[in-house]
Amino acid sequence: MEDKTLRRALLLDFYGDLLTGKQREYLDLYCNDDLSLAEIAEQAGISRQGVWDIIRRAEGVLEKIERKTGFIRKFEERKKAIDDICGGLSPLLGHGDESVRRAAETAIAKLCALED
Amino acid sequence: MEDKTLRRALLLDFYGDLLTGKQREYLDLYCNDDLSLAEIAEQAGISRQGVWDIIRRAEGVLEKIERKTGFIRKFEERKKAIDDICGGLSPLLGHGDESVRRAAETAIAKLCALED
Repeated sequence: MEDKTLRRALLLDFYGDLLTGKQREYLDLYCNDDLSLAEIAEQAGISRQGVWDIIRRAEGVLEKIERKTGFIRKFEERKKAIDDICGGLSPLLGHGDESVRRAAETAIAKLCALED
Repeated sequence: MEDKTLRRALLLDFYGDLLTGKQREYLDLYCNDDLSLAEIAEQAGISRQGVWDIIRRAEGVLEKIERKTGFIRKFEERKKAIDDICGGLSPLLGHGDESVRRAAETAIAKLCALED
């Protein structure tokens, strides 16, 4: 998936419910179902240009929300911080004391779940 | 601070930048600067009822965004999960092996930073 498509999918995942029904639907078909503009246009009964206008407007709305709230940026920063914490704990997984190994294992598993 | 005021302040903190300038301004004065409706009204040169209408509408907008995106709910769940992970690591702070103590200390400090 190219960067722009990935970015659109991330925006849609985070803020998609703030779009209108049509905006969300077309962007979802385009990003997640990988339909072409022509295929969406045929399905929706409007022109290819009409679909593109709606998708571009939706993308603009989502980028504006991200600029204002920064939840995707914070999510990405958190992901890095969690990886870093896991990296710091991982040497404990080979420790001679079983209680240390278990505590590290549990913490890492719970940290991974936090990344979602 | 009563529950409703806390909730408003949290909503404002998370999504305030998605409000109009006036909505954000009045809600901020009301929640964070603890001004009364009468004081805001005097400052803004509109009626007390006018201020209240804007604040209530703003609150409605923010609650709707939270219902749709759930970032505050996820933030609160994450806070609990982080506390839980820290709780699981804290016994290691008293471990005989210094490298274990240090790893646990570092992880807990970084986890606390994640809560913000």
